[in-house]
Amino acid sequence: MEITRRDLIKVSATITVLGTLGRASVAAHDPLPSWNDGPSKEAILDFIHDTTDKSSSKFVPAEERFATFDQDGTLWVEHPIYSQVMFAFERVFVLAPQHPEWKTTEPFKSVLADDKEAMAKFTLRDLEEILFATHTGMTVESFQTIATDWTAKAKDQRWKRPYTDLVYQPMIEVLRYFREKEFKTYIVTGGGQDFVRSYAERVYGVPPQNVIGSALDLHYEYDKEGQGVLMRPPKLLLNNNLSGKPEDIYLFLGRHPKAVFGNSTGDQQMEEFTQAGGGATLMMMVLHDDAQREYAYGPARGLPDTKVGTFTQALYDEAKSKGWNVISMKNDWKRVFAFEQ
Amino acid sequence: MEITRRDLIKVSATITVLGTLGRASVAAHDPLPSWNDGPSKEAILDFIHDTTDKSSSKFVPAEERFATFDQDGTLWVEHPIYSQVMFAFERVFVLAPQHPEWKTTEPFKSVLADDKEAMAKFTLRDLEEILFATHTGMTVESFQTIATDWTAKAKDQRWKRPYTDLVYQPMIEVLRYFREKEFKTYIVTGGGQDFVRSYAERVYGVPPQNVIGSALDLHYEYDKEGQGVLMRPPKLLLNNNLSGKPEDIYLFLGRHPKAVFGNSTGDQQMEEFTQAGGGATLMMMVLHDDAQREYAYGPARGLPDTKVGTFTQALYDEAKSKGWNVISMKNDWKRVFAFEQ
Repeated sequence: MEITRRDLIKVSATITVLGTLGRASVAAHDPLPSWNDGPSKEAILDFIHDTTDKSSSKFVPAEERFATFDQDGTLWVEHPIYSQVMFAFERVFVLAPQHPEWKTTEPFKSVLADDKEAMAKFTLRDLEEILFATHTGMTVESFQTIATDWTAKAKDQRWKRPYTDLVYQPMIEVLRYFREKEFKTYIVTGGGQDFVRSYAERVYGVPPQNVIGSALDLHYEYDKEGQGVLMRPPKLLLNNNLSGKPEDIYLFLGRHPKAVFGNSTGDQQMEEFTQAGGGATLMMMVLHDDAQREYAYGPARGLPDTKVGTFTQALYDEAKSKGWNVISMKNDWKRVFAFEQ
Repeated sequence: MEITRRDLIKVSATITVLGTLGRASVAAHDPLPSWNDGPSKEAILDFIHDTTDKSSSKFVPAEERFATFDQDGTLWVEHPIYSQVMFAFERVFVLAPQHPEWKTTEPFKSVLADDKEAMAKFTLRDLEEILFATHTGMTVESFQTIATDWTAKAKDQRWKRPYTDLVYQPMIEVLRYFREKEFKTYIVTGGGQDFVRSYAERVYGVPPQNVIGSALDLHYEYDKEGQGVLMRPPKLLLNNNLSGKPEDIYLFLGRHPKAVFGNSTGDQQMEEFTQAGGGATLMMMVLHDDAQREYAYGPARGLPDTKVGTFTQALYDEAKSKGWNVISMKNDWKRVFAFEQ
């Protein structure tokens, strides 16, 4: 059969149509639809491409694909106060009848009096006392029930929605996209491991065994019926913050992650540790610079220093000098929450 | 078309042939070929059937399928001395030139003199001193290299083979079968977590993040070049034995396992904890009653008490009274090692 010029035109037209369809199809399957085009989105897409394309020099076998995510301020709102601290304060009210002495004893007295000024000045020691008083002395199963019940009912005051609605939609997309590309996604949080595990699977698609957090030194003992139970004593085993993050990542995983998302000085060492693993790595830091849609705080780049989830100028400078990517909530995120239309 | 008697005979013959092939095919696919028929093999097969057949009342969704395995004496030989202790003793020789004082200081003196009588009397404190002296003071990466090098070269004296050849073939089949049925298989060992992680993937198909073991309180610090490194200090964080096993399983997984394999008093609480999770559960205990092919020790059922991996009569009685299954190496295992033909 002779190929005529008309045939060639037909073929060419077909290729053009297919090409257009192809591009349309790619656009329809944007894995990160809540992200604006820009350096942050590009860094994520490039990293996923490089590590999952077999022909790439940065290819990473599926069994080595691990990504770690801080939670407070990285996956959900941490302002004006960590949700878990709200949970602890509300537990003080629930438990107060069993502790009449709390009415006259700090730090409980201020919580029960709803003395916001005093609470804002709580030291770490005060918070620890409240956390131990409200989070320990029960079985692990009892704690799961208490935490689950609270999360189902409690609401944030600004948005009048459950705290679990206040997860960042762009980050939910990142978690899903990483898992779609056979990355194991881990939450590595300064928050309580068992608290976060009580909702992480439902909210983030992250099962309990993929949540690494601050954890109590659990105690196995026998109850009156001779049944073994795991009790929660007022003793911390893992303080999963700052240097604790790389220490606990190695304890749980025995390796460096390939990608990491954080937002504060508590994540600095985990970011460094990821980069130190070598090969293809992705270090991301969320900067809260969107007072309108969420909150604005740093103090990096002159944003207010609110003491919660601090992103210092020194950390910002380290990020820039080491080639970590700073995500601007304001510029990089098309929307912040799933409930925004 | 009329169906003749001859047609029916043909169809019937075909069905018979297919049926035979079907059975042959089932036999060819016995997932546990190194196990003799008997109550232990039956308990495993029944458990897997019940938990993975959607029509079963004991069905367990794939995301809840977790099985935990002790290592020493359950997955590989622990007699006459734990491999990791052999590793520590050999490290004493390697490090001795840097520690001239060891020649005259116990417990190192006895190790260097190869004084077997003295070594047999080492207390836990002696062993801890040797483990700390040989396992700490380096980065996590250095330790991986040292451990990997040793495992590649070291040989057991009885079989003249690498320790990693001394894994029980019937248990390798169990690990594989569980994973084939979408169970996540975890090693939960009193041995050092990082030591076991150095070979577990190659030997058992269990990746580092699925090994839970005794672990040091790692320390993240900065080296002379300002690079963050994870150091191994002489301080234990997790003593993953006895009550430590359920405590650490919950720390890592946030749940009860569905199946458990152990062999000594160190596994008792992990067996109890699995059963306490309720629903479909499988509790298995390996009894070393095969002096010929491996070793015989208890002291359950009058077997000698060798102090390593003790299976007491009290534990045996608890197992029987609670419906746990005791595996007789002698009767239940067709062969012990892969290198046996």
